[in-house]
Amino acid sequence: MQDDAESAEERLIARYFRPLATHPGAFGLGDDAAALTPPAGCDVVLTTDGVIAGVHFFADDPPETIGRKALRMNLSDLAAKGAKPIGFLLSVALPSATEEAWLAAFAEGLGEDAARYGCPLLGGDTDRTPGPTSVSIAAFGAVPQGKMVRRSTARVGDCVVVTGTVGDAALGVKLRRDRKLGKRWRLTEAMAEHLEQRYLLPQPRNAMAAAVLQHAAAAMDVSDGLAGDLAKLCRASSVAAEIDVARVPLSDAARTAVTAVPELIETVLTGGDDYEIVLTLAPEKLSAFRAAAQVAGVSVSEIGRLQAGQGARLIQDGKALIFARASYSHF
Amino acid sequence: MQDDAESAEERLIARYFRPLATHPGAFGLGDDAAALTPPAGCDVVLTTDGVIAGVHFFADDPPETIGRKALRMNLSDLAAKGAKPIGFLLSVALPSATEEAWLAAFAEGLGEDAARYGCPLLGGDTDRTPGPTSVSIAAFGAVPQGKMVRRSTARVGDCVVVTGTVGDAALGVKLRRDRKLGKRWRLTEAMAEHLEQRYLLPQPRNAMAAAVLQHAAAAMDVSDGLAGDLAKLCRASSVAAEIDVARVPLSDAARTAVTAVPELIETVLTGGDDYEIVLTLAPEKLSAFRAAAQVAGVSVSEIGRLQAGQGARLIQDGKALIFARASYSHF
Repeated sequence: MQDDAESAEERLIARYFRPLATHPGAFGLGDDAAALTPPAGCDVVLTTDGVIAGVHFFADDPPETIGRKALRMNLSDLAAKGAKPIGFLLSVALPSATEEAWLAAFAEGLGEDAARYGCPLLGGDTDRTPGPTSVSIAAFGAVPQGKMVRRSTARVGDCVVVTGTVGDAALGVKLRRDRKLGKRWRLTEAMAEHLEQRYLLPQPRNAMAAAVLQHAAAAMDVSDGLAGDLAKLCRASSVAAEIDVARVPLSDAARTAVTAVPELIETVLTGGDDYEIVLTLAPEKLSAFRAAAQVAGVSVSEIGRLQAGQGARLIQDGKALIFARASYSHF
Repeated sequence: MQDDAESAEERLIARYFRPLATHPGAFGLGDDAAALTPPAGCDVVLTTDGVIAGVHFFADDPPETIGRKALRMNLSDLAAKGAKPIGFLLSVALPSATEEAWLAAFAEGLGEDAARYGCPLLGGDTDRTPGPTSVSIAAFGAVPQGKMVRRSTARVGDCVVVTGTVGDAALGVKLRRDRKLGKRWRLTEAMAEHLEQRYLLPQPRNAMAAAVLQHAAAAMDVSDGLAGDLAKLCRASSVAAEIDVARVPLSDAARTAVTAVPELIETVLTGGDDYEIVLTLAPEKLSAFRAAAQVAGVSVSEIGRLQAGQGARLIQDGKALIFARASYSHF
């Protein structure tokens, strides 16, 4: 009789990942593939993003945050496109020294978010790696056919709006590297904690997806820094943006740090990992959008206008800020 | 004026990957996400699989084969599920020492296959890694709604059929590690070359997808070894299989090696990386399936029958073969 027992790989998948596969088309992770019946009249929106230990997170970050972060990065893309989450595929590569307790915590955190955001696991791929832990996710959402909110459809005269607050995670990662900076930045313990948490666990704005779909002319998620991401949107739409830096929304913690060390405004505006949405909309739609945001419990800030031309100008005290690097690039 | 130039990352993506993004919903890789309008009346079939240097391929394998291999592993899953390819997402992590010539060859090979199999790039994620090169792909296909061919729907009395030949890649990887084995196995140079090529470049059976969809009761792709994969199918379907090892299709090269070193039958049956399809079908459908295979130019072999019970028994010279490990497990 040929071996009928499950392999160690199958056992780990069954124990830790099958509970996340609540979508009927995941077939309990017991098949080669998943099957998805898209909602009638909808397009499927597809995105992929991932994290690697030592690049996107610290190897000793709490394991329950790592899968959540990877999933939330993808959820943020879906939100910015106006899409409602459907589910995700997970590809995870683990060093052989990975303890089962790590995997258990990783999967538990991931499962919590899969439930919270209505984005169940559809399938996956699990490998050993001689390299660092790495987690790649492909996530899927639904929008009415042809209605995915694009980067390239912004128009001259649109307001530029951003959700939440900008720069927290970029400051948080600096603190994560050197906790003593908190003192120099005049942060309270709670402020430092807030910034680190924003790095550890993005807050994707999926609650805003329907409002973005309804009102935005163009949108993208802010993952590589507001300055550079907005420049990408302008380039895609062949418009220019003029941003009033004083109106860029900062948390109390970020405001305190920038007040103490004004050069930190560069980190705030170019640092990345915000996972907010930057969008443009016709000025007459702004009040309806603000109302929808209030219902969703998400703060939104108008930070500038689109003009004819090219590039995103960041105006502070009447002068344009120039940074060496507008956004994070892996290369 | 904020930096308006493309980053190095954007430049690499534009140069090497944008040409592969021929699907209109990929938006030329210029957005956060892709949008897919599923064919009317179809489900989207989703799968993910990847390769890591030092685990699934040798770091000095030709770069043009590496993306192709990763894509073909996923195409093989789609084929086994009866699905027609739609497109794929690519997630690639590159060591900083990666030369641009490597990336160019990688992308060129991948693009060749994207065109060959009608499976364009929809989007992706590119990162630097301190670890080995790693490529993860999520691929999407279409089947009529509710018709994805499952593992769990095999029935007692079905014939067990496998496409192509089994064991070539598992022998090929042994040769790739130690070319001198070729002599011990009595292989000609051409035979050794054939086996190594089967390891380097799987031949997914997408030409058989329509026939699998039409005729198969159950199917899966053979990626972790015929013995273990068939045992998985039996477990999922609550049936037993009795396989006549003499009827398992071997290439001339594999036949020669197994004749010279009979113990190699274990490698052949459990070694993995075949990327063939194992399927079950009602005996009365066998001739129609064979005819469809002939039209597709793919050889198919009936290798056994399903019975009541559990497990996959491999019968050779009247005795059941017992292997230490039925299939490849990463853990």
